[in-house]
Amino acid sequence: MSSMIGEKLRVSIFGQSHGEAIGVVIDGLPAGEEIDAQELQAFLDRRAPGKNKFSTARKEGDVPQFLSGVLDGKTCGAPLCAVIHNTDTRSGDYKPLSQLMRPSHADYPAHVRYGGHQDVRGGGHFSGRLTAPVCIAGGIAKQILARRGIFVGAHAEAVGRTKDRRFGTVELLKEELFLPLSRAIPVLDEGAAEAMQNEIEAARMQGDSVGGIIECAAIGVPAGLGDPMFGGVENRLSSALFGIPAIRGVEFGTGFAAAAMRGSVHNDPYRLRDGKVVTETNHHGGILGGITSGMPVIFRVAVKPTPSIALEQRTVDIEKMEETTLRVTGRHDPCITLRAVPCVEAVAAIVLLDLML
Amino acid sequence: MSSMIGEKLRVSIFGQSHGEAIGVVIDGLPAGEEIDAQELQAFLDRRAPGKNKFSTARKEGDVPQFLSGVLDGKTCGAPLCAVIHNTDTRSGDYKPLSQLMRPSHADYPAHVRYGGHQDVRGGGHFSGRLTAPVCIAGGIAKQILARRGIFVGAHAEAVGRTKDRRFGTVELLKEELFLPLSRAIPVLDEGAAEAMQNEIEAARMQGDSVGGIIECAAIGVPAGLGDPMFGGVENRLSSALFGIPAIRGVEFGTGFAAAAMRGSVHNDPYRLRDGKVVTETNHHGGILGGITSGMPVIFRVAVKPTPSIALEQRTVDIEKMEETTLRVTGRHDPCITLRAVPCVEAVAAIVLLDLML
Amino acid sequence: MSSMIGEKLRVSIFGQSHGEAIGVVIDGLPAGEEIDAQELQAFLDRRAPGKNKFSTARKEGDVPQFLSGVLDGKTCGAPLCAVIHNTDTRSGDYKPLSQLMRPSHADYPAHVRYGGHQDVRGGGHFSGRLTAPVCIAGGIAKQILARRGIFVGAHAEAVGRTKDRRFGTVELLKEELFLPLSRAIPVLDEGAAEAMQNEIEAARMQGDSVGGIIECAAIGVPAGLGDPMFGGVENRLSSALFGIPAIRGVEFGTGFAAAAMRGSVHNDPYRLRDGKVVTETNHHGGILGGITSGMPVIFRVAVKPTPSIALEQRTVDIEKMEETTLRVTGRHDPCITLRAVPCVEAVAAIVLLDLML
Amino acid sequence: MSSMIGEKLRVSIFGQSHGEAIGVVIDGLPAGEEIDAQELQAFLDRRAPGKNKFSTARKEGDVPQFLSGVLDGKTCGAPLCAVIHNTDTRSGDYKPLSQLMRPSHADYPAHVRYGGHQDVRGGGHFSGRLTAPVCIAGGIAKQILARRGIFVGAHAEAVGRTKDRRFGTVELLKEELFLPLSRAIPVLDEGAAEAMQNEIEAARMQGDSVGGIIECAAIGVPAGLGDPMFGGVENRLSSALFGIPAIRGVEFGTGFAAAAMRGSVHNDPYRLRDGKVVTETNHHGGILGGITSGMPVIFRVAVKPTPSIALEQRTVDIEKMEETTLRVTGRHDPCITLRAVPCVEAVAAIVLLDLML
Repeated sequence: MSSMIGEKLRVSIFGQSHGEAIGVVIDGLPAGEEIDAQELQAFLDRRAPGKNKFSTARKEGDVPQFLSGVLDGKTCGAPLCAVIHNTDTRSGDYKPLSQLMRPSHADYPAHVRYGGHQDVRGGGHFSGRLTAPVCIAGGIAKQILARRGIFVGAHAEAVGRTKDRRFGTVELLKEELFLPLSRAIPVLDEGAAEAMQNEIEAARMQGDSVGGIIECAAIGVPAGLGDPMFGGVENRLSSALFGIPAIRGVEFGTGFAAAAMRGSVHNDPYRLRDGKVVTETNHHGGILGGITSGMPVIFRVAVKPTPSIALEQRTVDIEKMEETTLRVTGRHDPCITLRAVPCVEAVAAIVLLDLML
Repeated sequence: MSSMIGEKLRVSIFGQSHGEAIGVVIDGLPAGEEIDAQELQAFLDRRAPGKNKFSTARKEGDVPQFLSGVLDGKTCGAPLCAVIHNTDTRSGDYKPLSQLMRPSHADYPAHVRYGGHQDVRGGGHFSGRLTAPVCIAGGIAKQILARRGIFVGAHAEAVGRTKDRRFGTVELLKEELFLPLSRAIPVLDEGAAEAMQNEIEAARMQGDSVGGIIECAAIGVPAGLGDPMFGGVENRLSSALFGIPAIRGVEFGTGFAAAAMRGSVHNDPYRLRDGKVVTETNHHGGILGGITSGMPVIFRVAVKPTPSIALEQRTVDIEKMEETTLRVTGRHDPCITLRAVPCVEAVAAIVLLDLML
Repeated sequence: MSSMIGEKLRVSIFGQSHGEAIGVVIDGLPAGEEIDAQELQAFLDRRAPGKNKFSTARKEGDVPQFLSGVLDGKTCGAPLCAVIHNTDTRSGDYKPLSQLMRPSHADYPAHVRYGGHQDVRGGGHFSGRLTAPVCIAGGIAKQILARRGIFVGAHAEAVGRTKDRRFGTVELLKEELFLPLSRAIPVLDEGAAEAMQNEIEAARMQGDSVGGIIECAAIGVPAGLGDPMFGGVENRLSSALFGIPAIRGVEFGTGFAAAAMRGSVHNDPYRLRDGKVVTETNHHGGILGGITSGMPVIFRVAVKPTPSIALEQRTVDIEKMEETTLRVTGRHDPCITLRAVPCVEAVAAIVLLDLML
Repeated sequence: MSSMIGEKLRVSIFGQSHGEAIGVVIDGLPAGEEIDAQELQAFLDRRAPGKNKFSTARKEGDVPQFLSGVLDGKTCGAPLCAVIHNTDTRSGDYKPLSQLMRPSHADYPAHVRYGGHQDVRGGGHFSGRLTAPVCIAGGIAKQILARRGIFVGAHAEAVGRTKDRRFGTVELLKEELFLPLSRAIPVLDEGAAEAMQNEIEAARMQGDSVGGIIECAAIGVPAGLGDPMFGGVENRLSSALFGIPAIRGVEFGTGFAAAAMRGSVHNDPYRLRDGKVVTETNHHGGILGGITSGMPVIFRVAVKPTPSIALEQRTVDIEKMEETTLRVTGRHDPCITLRAVPCVEAVAAIVLLDLML
């Protein structure tokens, strides 16, 4: 089950960065669901490259073409296939790299795994470009969830050392959830945006890159979703989230900070509000025993700094089996965290819709 | 797929804390593998309650009985079923809790999920006791992996605010990996043990509890294991690790700390050593693009403070739908991090063996 | 996924014929479902050996013990584990067989598959005895289905050359479905029972065995269950049915006889009856395009003659790699078709309940 | 898992008969395998419509376009996606059918299943046209299997009441396996071809259709493939075969005829030939206990008569909920058995390759 995820909603991703096309097959979508193409495109555009000076200069429309599963703008129950044809590829850039293993890319493990037969152009199937079809699936899932009163949002909580404020954990409203959408850089605190911009620009000027943290939340999720042990919501979300390249950690609710807390502080007391069971605090991030509690689902992911940097790096030539150096040329984001924000939303939406079906 | 995990090696957990028995079915084990019962028991004993004053006073042998899959001490290819009969259960302790939702336990989500039909005694299927059969499967997996030169070890990197030192990331030897086994408290740095002991005792005296962090490593893992995107080693490990109750976060390699790093620092340059491709540093934790690099696999998990505390807590009575308070009586660990150490090893071994098959 | 079946309802079978115990884990049962132990036992008794002179002389109570998943007689949402301890085993009978591959048993393929490590005693995991835990799962599924108005029944349509009449295909009532239950030999036509008895007895007297055909039907199945292509009801049923040892063919509706028919005869015209869409005939066996039509689901399976016969047979000694002969001693049914009838019902019930969830 | 099949080799089918395109994603193909495009096309042409007067008049090239997974004519380890664009569709033909449920088609069950949102044009996702992408996957699988010495072949064993002879079951050579390829109608016995042609033509002249039986065999399959119980080769093959529309039954080896046989006749004695264990007869069809024996794998499937016939049929109008009649116009094969022959080979190859990986 390499490039597939989901139980009732099965999402299968295919394509290589510089191949003919990339795409997705979504099996198990409920029939009769409208797909608002304009809204989907707006969502995809949040991830698309070439939007601003911080992201890669490669410009592509990334307009999905639906090959199946949609009839008169609605899902018809059959597996939905959508593809994006790769048009603006400059494979020449990557040719000399095929023997030189780019540090902290998948090049070397993939070389071993596939015996040298893998597509190395632009990272092949391991490219961040493969998150575009993930976002198609996620964008559709978001529309279906919204009709059921479930909303997913995310923001760049950190870029390098610069931090945004966090989402409210107990009473999180749609307005706050969607606030980052209103900004060029998806943050809650307008002041953070400029500082992040400066940090990214400084890295870029030095031929370097920066990492970041993304916080994601889902509101309106009913209590009782998920299964115990290995079928829990954390299990499913984390399993799917690590499908986004460059993600190195996932934490739910208070996450790693819980390690240093006392139980009396970390425990979330129950209260009644309008006849509904709620918690006073939300250290549990909306999930207990793998099952949703009805509180906002909150998690954070760590994004590593872009491995493609202009600086010279030491590496090995896998054909000659010699140590050497390389400089990664081509077009690269100095900070992929920003473009990963909608990807994280997409993955969360896919998993939540799967749980709802 | 609630209480099952794995693709070629399928591990299925059953049982409730105070039911007749807990157990595991393991399907897909290679035939002809010896199971060293004594070594397995020693591994299970590391997790078992009642070992020292820091863990719950409930004492049980936790000796697994093999119902199938083993013939003359070797696996025979048929699904292996092992059970542990529950003998020392005092359900009376828990009776009044059935209406009072214990904060930060699965009680409330489970109540919604199962319509009140769930077994609430001792947490039922959500109890930490269910990690015993996980450890049976993991202990067997560890023996099989060891025969293939793969070793898994873990230690308590933090208990509350007290920290142990970390594993070496590049040249990690069996001696260091197994060092925590030699101590009453599984740490690398002997000094940390006493400080942790004090921190736990202080919490216990106050009717409170503390969380912690566990670092786990696997050495000898060959390069090229794992699949891209959703079939990556991080995806599989995290999906399985969140099956251990109380785990709230998972990070690989440098993890969340990568967010604040530059690419030039985080990238791991390749070198040749004895004709083998290695990396100079191991920020990637032995996994790139979801596939192993041949370097030590390293990850950390956050463990929340035990939710069962003696202090009074606010909650709701789910039958009367009234706010009230409760005190959790019974026998509880003030810090489950220590007993979770072998559980984390067990899960890692299950996932790695599944990948090897 | 060797000994597991199902998607939402996951049934996992374990045990060997002469091991400690055989059993089943059922994950995904809805919570709060009553399990009528007496009714379940009555169902299991239909499969149990030693009931009459036609079945093996091995007598066992085959009373399942519930280790988990049941609380106060109701499912509690946690995985249900039930075991049957093997008490009346005489492994001595089988010892010399371990080197002699019994014709048309799994001995030789299993020897290759497991490198000689498989449990050969009584057929090990390949024994027909493993259908007992299948019947536990199926018996529980039948009770849950009955509460939803779905009923499953089966009968021996043929034993050797002797035939029973078939179920009505369009208007099949509970009375007819359950008619075979009222007879010592599960047939519709009382006359067939005696002829079958004679045919079996004749085979037995000659140290030989006979095969048979089982027809199974389910009524009350709503229209619209199942998925297209590989997720169809036929796919799921056949995949599960071949899990019963000795089954060699499965056909739905008119099945193989459809090959010689014209479309104008085989097509089932639609009619309205009491405002409901029905078909005039039911050559489609209640399934079209993999999805139920609301008509009775009807299928037949072929059961091969018991491979264990008293007559001398030619075979090879796998250790000496020599041709030789063997006589299968021990206790064997001259016709397993009769005891397979409840097993077929069990499998059908498991699959239908899985589809309903 | 509706339109997906396989464990290590995952085949996911998408598309509707009159949608934009149909296609397949194949995940898990070994890397570095050559795909001979010409050989693949020759295989697809065996299934393609418009080849002779017996098949539908719809003519399409059915040339697959590879979107991913192939690099320089070889598999690269990434999921392979191939599509066939639908060019020659005349949806107008089907419009009035949307309310009239075509007898013995999936129309009515699909209407219930998808709430009327399904694509009814040409049968939508339920169309026999969806076997084209199955054949792409199967054609690729056949090439990879052939390199491992495994060959799959099939023939029309029966068309209506006309029968071909059967494959030899014990010593089946490549020449006999591929003999049907040399004929316009895929049969072993040349004389059968003309009789079948006449039977089909007679049905066509009367606006009617005929069914048939396909026999399929695989040689070179090593002993020891498959898992016990639900993971057996029969389980996997049958589960996949019922994915081909119109298939109503599957039997292995002697199949249903075994029901009337004595064990002494049906049992296959073992012999040694050139130091290899073989059976004298092959009633077991190369599979015992779900595991291959090394003998030819042999099975048969029943194909129902084409449900689309020109004759007037009684049905219901699902919108008006009235009984009415319909005549199915458009282009339809009077016998789909012939075109289903390569589809059966394709499915067998997919399952066998999955087992080999």
